[in-house]
Amino acid sequence: MAVYQATASAPVNIACIKYWGKRDTKLILPTNSSLSVTLDQDHLRSTTTSRADPSFTKDRLWLNGTEDEIKAGGRLATCISEMKRMRKEYEDQNPNEPKLSDFYVHICSRNNFPTAAGLASSASGFAALVSSLAALYKLPASPSKLSLIARQGSGSACRSLFGGFVAWEQGTSPDGSDSFAVEVAPREHWPDIHALICVVSDDKKGTSSTSGMQRTVETSALLQHRIKHVVPERMRAISEAIKARDFDAFARITMQDSNQFHAVALDTEPPIFYMNDVSRAIIALVVEYNRVSVEAGGKLKAAYTYDAGPNAVIYAPKENLREIVEMIVKYFPQADPFKDPFGLFGAAGVTEGGVIPGFNTAVAKQFEVGAVKNLIHTRVGDGPRVLGAEEALLGAEGFPKSIS
Amino acid sequence: MAVYQATASAPVNIACIKYWGKRDTKLILPTNSSLSVTLDQDHLRSTTTSRADPSFTKDRLWLNGTEDEIKAGGRLATCISEMKRMRKEYEDQNPNEPKLSDFYVHICSRNNFPTAAGLASSASGFAALVSSLAALYKLPASPSKLSLIARQGSGSACRSLFGGFVAWEQGTSPDGSDSFAVEVAPREHWPDIHALICVVSDDKKGTSSTSGMQRTVETSALLQHRIKHVVPERMRAISEAIKARDFDAFARITMQDSNQFHAVALDTEPPIFYMNDVSRAIIALVVEYNRVSVEAGGKLKAAYTYDAGPNAVIYAPKENLREIVEMIVKYFPQADPFKDPFGLFGAAGVTEGGVIPGFNTAVAKQFEVGAVKNLIHTRVGDGPRVLGAEEALLGAEGFPKSIS
Repeated sequence: MAVYQATASAPVNIACIKYWGKRDTKLILPTNSSLSVTLDQDHLRSTTTSRADPSFTKDRLWLNGTEDEIKAGGRLATCISEMKRMRKEYEDQNPNEPKLSDFYVHICSRNNFPTAAGLASSASGFAALVSSLAALYKLPASPSKLSLIARQGSGSACRSLFGGFVAWEQGTSPDGSDSFAVEVAPREHWPDIHALICVVSDDKKGTSSTSGMQRTVETSALLQHRIKHVVPERMRAISEAIKARDFDAFARITMQDSNQFHAVALDTEPPIFYMNDVSRAIIALVVEYNRVSVEAGGKLKAAYTYDAGPNAVIYAPKENLREIVEMIVKYFPQADPFKDPFGLFGAAGVTEGGVIPGFNTAVAKQFEVGAVKNLIHTRVGDGPRVLGAEEALLGAEGFPKSIS
Repeated sequence: MAVYQATASAPVNIACIKYWGKRDTKLILPTNSSLSVTLDQDHLRSTTTSRADPSFTKDRLWLNGTEDEIKAGGRLATCISEMKRMRKEYEDQNPNEPKLSDFYVHICSRNNFPTAAGLASSASGFAALVSSLAALYKLPASPSKLSLIARQGSGSACRSLFGGFVAWEQGTSPDGSDSFAVEVAPREHWPDIHALICVVSDDKKGTSSTSGMQRTVETSALLQHRIKHVVPERMRAISEAIKARDFDAFARITMQDSNQFHAVALDTEPPIFYMNDVSRAIIALVVEYNRVSVEAGGKLKAAYTYDAGPNAVIYAPKENLREIVEMIVKYFPQADPFKDPFGLFGAAGVTEGGVIPGFNTAVAKQFEVGAVKNLIHTRVGDGPRVLGAEEALLGAEGFPKSIS
């Protein structure tokens, strides 16, 4: 008997122009366009196996070893039913294809990074879900078309349907048909963009993005100005910077927009804070690192950006990563040795860290071990990949191979 | 020989609608109007003695026991020369008065609160300076007229020329002649407004207000929107709330405006942070304290506000202060016993603190002793006072009585 199964992986993306605010909460239509860098799946990815089988009695999904309820009308159910609808269209046009759209599916998904890291995994997760179902269903859909479905799972998931540099065009249509992701430039255009993720310890769970952004929409006097007047110009300018591989402009806009996103969160009632004192200290270090360069007649060498949490992502040309890791390690001593995937430090590894000449070390204090729990060095990456059967997460019977 | 000497004290004020941004940095003309509550001089004040004498060889000023240089063209020199100019006008109209405007002055000033507290003392300081010179020179000038001079020493000093609730009208004239303070309501109109100042420990010196606000003017995309569209409406609404003694509206606007001031600081390049994790925790406590009241059908019971530093000022009707002190002490254990100027706690004093029923204690963690260094309980207060000779800070020879 035929087995209908496919496995795909999808990357994480970190926005440079932030998505914050929905104009339609059910369809997940944003109040402004956004733009992100896709990170390398070799370091951070979600992998998903989907299988359709007439023996299944309902749609089921396991995430990181635990079964998730697929609530009727919820985001998971919406994505699955939308993919089945597209399969049905495909079957209607190709009558010889098996009627998979009539079968229930089993879906198994895993992230290769700890959930505890506080890295938004819904983007890579929904992108992998949609990609695996698209492979299972043999859909001829483009990434932009698939991004329409992923968007309804988690807004920023739509941007994980592409590698490289990706815009999510907000669109204007009430049905969301023009609110999808497009590639601004592939990773090959500017492979030199590396990223250092500083996983910051947090005492408490902050506000969820979903509820937080709607409170901002309802109460911030500044958000509307951002939406109408600031973001459109920044989208244009950062796209140009990417096309021109102009890191200085890219970095400036990225930092401005991270700051402004957190500013409108603060302008919310009651205010929303995602950054903590550690986040602020990392900003101070990057600002000082750039200041030294600019005062010597150079350009910006690094850009910080923060999503809805305290973790910093530092973007920089590869050649600066060694200095940046040294700087972060000096102020945030690490419990575990720095995993050095690009071999910046040789066999000895990074030890106590240090700063570049001319750096004012008083811009931040040295924190205790654990303030930054972990450092992940990665780079701009590719889009979703369809994987071979050997990487499937479902066993012969269509259930998770191992539950951990 | 006649002694020409006068002593005055002036209060601190804490803004509810924040002043942030100058349209003229020399004349200190603001980009938006602001509004503050004057705090009680019985708890926080600057006292200044000024003396004019033909034997003096130059203008001199001692602040908290240390001589300050009066730089030519600087803010101190501007205030002193403006006051001399007004004295000269008075002498021209009253030819029998001594020609004090020809004499040099000695000025001695003290704050009754520690500079290390991080409370802006320039407002009370310049207000006391101007008030003592006005008394020395017997000027018939109104507080609004004197506020034009104090403003040129430190913008927010102009608001310390009145007690109670004070607006600083930004004005439109390029010469600053219509940028002065006016009384919205005297303390007697709403004496029930109390304040708890939480002096928050800070690891490092932040950005000075003077340089910070101009960076915001130059780089924040959101500040202009705030200036043009948000502040005018808030000034109107909070003035109404004060006139109506509507604490709920007063509190809401005060918290919104504190948040928005810090939001535009964050929207600055590079970003400016004044609040730290302790400040954020105090906000979370006040938000939760209000939530419990509102969910029970009540109104807002407290309002936080933060100036350009991490210290919180909590405004509340007097009846809530006991609960508020208990709440703060629970999360921020104090090294020293709470000074209880209004006798909220009786002989036993406040011990471990506590929260009101229904309060979600998980909104903040308990901090270590010292995170909030000190609590100052005060209330709305009166304007500058002319003091008797027994309170003079200058001795018989016109020099500071004691240098500590």
